[in-house]
Amino acid sequence: MQPEKGQNAKSFKQRLVLKSSLAKETLSEFLGTFIMIVLGCGSVAQAILSRGHFGGIVTINVGFATAVAMAIYVTGGVSGGHINPAVTFAMCLFGRMKWFKLPFYMGAQFLGAFAGAATLFGIYYDGLMSFAGGKLLIVGENATAHIFATYPAPYLSLANAFADQVVATMFLLMIVFAIFDSRNLGVPRGLEPIVIGLLIIVISCSLGLNSGCAMNPARDLGPRFFTALAGWGFEVFTAGNYFWWIPVVGPLVGASIGGLIYVLVIEIHHPDPDSDFEAEQSEGRPEKYELNVIM
Amino acid sequence: MQPEKGQNAKSFKQRLVLKSSLAKETLSEFLGTFIMIVLGCGSVAQAILSRGHFGGIVTINVGFATAVAMAIYVTGGVSGGHINPAVTFAMCLFGRMKWFKLPFYMGAQFLGAFAGAATLFGIYYDGLMSFAGGKLLIVGENATAHIFATYPAPYLSLANAFADQVVATMFLLMIVFAIFDSRNLGVPRGLEPIVIGLLIIVISCSLGLNSGCAMNPARDLGPRFFTALAGWGFEVFTAGNYFWWIPVVGPLVGASIGGLIYVLVIEIHHPDPDSDFEAEQSEGRPEKYELNVIM
Amino acid sequence: MQPEKGQNAKSFKQRLVLKSSLAKETLSEFLGTFIMIVLGCGSVAQAILSRGHFGGIVTINVGFATAVAMAIYVTGGVSGGHINPAVTFAMCLFGRMKWFKLPFYMGAQFLGAFAGAATLFGIYYDGLMSFAGGKLLIVGENATAHIFATYPAPYLSLANAFADQVVATMFLLMIVFAIFDSRNLGVPRGLEPIVIGLLIIVISCSLGLNSGCAMNPARDLGPRFFTALAGWGFEVFTAGNYFWWIPVVGPLVGASIGGLIYVLVIEIHHPDPDSDFEAEQSEGRPEKYELNVIM
Amino acid sequence: MQPEKGQNAKSFKQRLVLKSSLAKETLSEFLGTFIMIVLGCGSVAQAILSRGHFGGIVTINVGFATAVAMAIYVTGGVSGGHINPAVTFAMCLFGRMKWFKLPFYMGAQFLGAFAGAATLFGIYYDGLMSFAGGKLLIVGENATAHIFATYPAPYLSLANAFADQVVATMFLLMIVFAIFDSRNLGVPRGLEPIVIGLLIIVISCSLGLNSGCAMNPARDLGPRFFTALAGWGFEVFTAGNYFWWIPVVGPLVGASIGGLIYVLVIEIHHPDPDSDFEAEQSEGRPEKYELNVIM
Repeated sequence: MQPEKGQNAKSFKQRLVLKSSLAKETLSEFLGTFIMIVLGCGSVAQAILSRGHFGGIVTINVGFATAVAMAIYVTGGVSGGHINPAVTFAMCLFGRMKWFKLPFYMGAQFLGAFAGAATLFGIYYDGLMSFAGGKLLIVGENATAHIFATYPAPYLSLANAFADQVVATMFLLMIVFAIFDSRNLGVPRGLEPIVIGLLIIVISCSLGLNSGCAMNPARDLGPRFFTALAGWGFEVFTAGNYFWWIPVVGPLVGASIGGLIYVLVIEIHHPDPDSDFEAEQSEGRPEKYELNVIM
Repeated sequence: MQPEKGQNAKSFKQRLVLKSSLAKETLSEFLGTFIMIVLGCGSVAQAILSRGHFGGIVTINVGFATAVAMAIYVTGGVSGGHINPAVTFAMCLFGRMKWFKLPFYMGAQFLGAFAGAATLFGIYYDGLMSFAGGKLLIVGENATAHIFATYPAPYLSLANAFADQVVATMFLLMIVFAIFDSRNLGVPRGLEPIVIGLLIIVISCSLGLNSGCAMNPARDLGPRFFTALAGWGFEVFTAGNYFWWIPVVGPLVGASIGGLIYVLVIEIHHPDPDSDFEAEQSEGRPEKYELNVIM
Repeated sequence: MQPEKGQNAKSFKQRLVLKSSLAKETLSEFLGTFIMIVLGCGSVAQAILSRGHFGGIVTINVGFATAVAMAIYVTGGVSGGHINPAVTFAMCLFGRMKWFKLPFYMGAQFLGAFAGAATLFGIYYDGLMSFAGGKLLIVGENATAHIFATYPAPYLSLANAFADQVVATMFLLMIVFAIFDSRNLGVPRGLEPIVIGLLIIVISCSLGLNSGCAMNPARDLGPRFFTALAGWGFEVFTAGNYFWWIPVVGPLVGASIGGLIYVLVIEIHHPDPDSDFEAEQSEGRPEKYELNVIM
Repeated sequence: MQPEKGQNAKSFKQRLVLKSSLAKETLSEFLGTFIMIVLGCGSVAQAILSRGHFGGIVTINVGFATAVAMAIYVTGGVSGGHINPAVTFAMCLFGRMKWFKLPFYMGAQFLGAFAGAATLFGIYYDGLMSFAGGKLLIVGENATAHIFATYPAPYLSLANAFADQVVATMFLLMIVFAIFDSRNLGVPRGLEPIVIGLLIIVISCSLGLNSGCAMNPARDLGPRFFTALAGWGFEVFTAGNYFWWIPVVGPLVGASIGGLIYVLVIEIHHPDPDSDFEAEQSEGRPEKYELNVIM
């Protein structure tokens, strides 16, 4: 009987195992985006709900960036750790992923972000309730909606807001392409998430003032939709002159431009190892190794 | 005579050497938890005793996280650097450690935390005495008990407090499992403590507001027991509606759930290198290396 | 037809590819300096335009340093990631780059910094306009010129200002030389940008008070020239007793001294592997590996 | 003539090259301590002279720690990067360096620290002069002596001060021994300075309140002696009830204890690869690699 029981146990485990690569990747993107929202938006929640006593711009920026890094550690080896429809879109656009996967990735990312917002709402339920006397507000000093989604600064025009999201995501993707370009300087394997975390830190320290630097349609729209349902109301979509679509569309445009700039300015010019023509030319070119030595 | 003296010296050293692997590991866990408490709770002490002039949320979160990282560097190669009964429990539960070691690890962790609290009390004895006119208080603006153990925010219900510890430790273990999963993205060897430190930073920046994010029964109960004896009194156990058991039980539950989620969502689906079936399937699966290249 | 179309596509791509190594490097330095200014000066902008609410000395120093690190990741494998005329000058001076490349590198760095300042101005246009009622000021509490270029502290004499820039850049180059000296301790390949980022952090935390620690003629002069044209007026050159030339000339002097000190005190004494004389001598010298073990 | 000139040039360079290993190491320790003081004490200077506007506990702790890391990158491959007499003393005590080198290392460290203090004084001369109306003060809100050396908190007794320096340095050396113990978890080669920097951060965040956490006789006595000569007067030695000797003697005691604890609790129990007895025993011991996998 013992062996048969072993076989049964094995087959039970095997029944759980996903045969389809796409199913694994979809599940992985869901989990990654979920982690990013709970820990990332959680850093915003801690700063706001404590009115700055247990958090501020440093803990928010470091917290969100590290949340992204941790989500990539959990999902990177399975689905590439995109956790961002703009990243997935750029990967498809530049031929690094097949288009048919795009809707699965994007759907998982939106659902993961929604589920993350709901979980965060649960963990801080008592805190949210006591913060503004039980009210869930979108504007004013007792506002809590910006824990979940981003809202524009009062001075910001829609045109500037759109440019802001395009440019921020452009820098994000341009540098992400560099981080994974093994023919450039090269981040050591296994440390890419840390360097991406640093990248998120610098962008949110420099380009975060206008509208909170979402750079990610799922990160913004999923939690915004949750707040609409959970008690803040559908004014979360009308606030800021219907700002909601800007962190959805802007990042897709910016990611495309950022990828394109990196490819045109840097990647396309790397010497082609298979080409005789390049091999001859490359003698006059300083070697990568040497360049680093001379820095 | 010379050789004999040499032999004696050797045998003296050998007498000190622990033959038993379990004894070494127990000693190692004691030392690791001791280091974590002195340097981690010390970071809280510096912020509180200076009334915010020489510390705050950034130094506390960075300090505690780095204390954990350093404790793992000291103990990781000997006992795995758990320094947390919830981690040890999860390791046993998921078959990564034998159950008979559990009581030794847990005992060492509680004793190490107690000894760390006593040492910290000694180093800051003058500071503690001068802080509140010689009184050791649990509540109010001159309270010092929360240097050692965690206490809940005023708004927090017991149910929310329990959920908070479960969810925080769930994220801790889920991501720790990812960090040590060599078939996922993979942290470079020797850098795991740094990435775990970053993980502690993000969790304490995001989920630390409710009740200080203990996530570790030994880290909380050991120092709490010390404060009960050292002059704060046994009100440290009744405070916050008998809050003390929540950072003891919650983390054990959360660690189990977190480990389970990682295994079910990610680990179980990794292709089995020994299985022919998987080998065939894996052709359709993007390679780990490629995935990293595409982001 | 298919193959021919393929050939056409290939030749179109090949037409974009730069054959000249110098052209690639020039383009790379332009892009790197551009990135550094948008993200680095952007960190200053966020702190100033939010009047400290969304930034301060920590986000500025971490932001600028990480901007440098990211710029090096994008350009390091192509042009060495100098993004600083003082670095390029020192590389030529110590025989690590050919002098004929110097004007191309420097030109690209100044143009990249100018373009970066213009881009940043665009992204924060609404913020700049609302900050001081539409005025672009150089002095006073509503000043914004120091977002782009550096200005001296009120107490600073010109002599002290010059010494400040010389000494700060001296430390920068001295330690950059160490970071790339493979016969010294050695930063792991691919992590040099991170360590350089840390170097920028410590210098701007320690030597940043006098005049903002430019250490880079392009980083300072490019954006200063932009502000002169964009509405702040040519008083940006007369301010601080004609301070503008100090972060241009001082870094060139300091870089030369810093490189010289490193070469004379450390590098020149490394054992020469080709020399029999040295080989004999080196037996008495502790091995690098051993030294690290003994710390 | 050409070849002879070449030979002359070579011999000129060779005349500069230090033949003696000890001379190289002494010079290296001088330069390393010099760097640490300028950038480390510089971080304190920036915070104090700006009255907190351009620095605070975060920039001081990160700045000093990174200054240590950078000094080790410059000197680690030549002299081991001690830059601290307490480290050198422990290295000799535990047989990792020969005693005859001790006075050379210590002398270089004190001189380097003195020279660093003088350089820092020069760079911030205008700032120091304007800070307190030209006065160089040791106590009060306009004090500047603590830029250079450490002073005890008002509440601190001499006994507690001594214990503080002993315990802080004990943790420093205990963990430094772990960082360089290749049979423990192991920091990747070339990243030891970064991990030591993190170690300095956590100790100064947790044990820095009592007396500023010098942990280094040269770092404290060298600059203190400089301030005595430069205008603060010899009250720098009488201040704090003749506190000056505590950061000189305490660290030597603490370093010895810290090294001893690490050796006795961890290092001595590592399995001996040459011993048959151990080889047999080690089968029951979990492998280092496995341990890491199980965390």
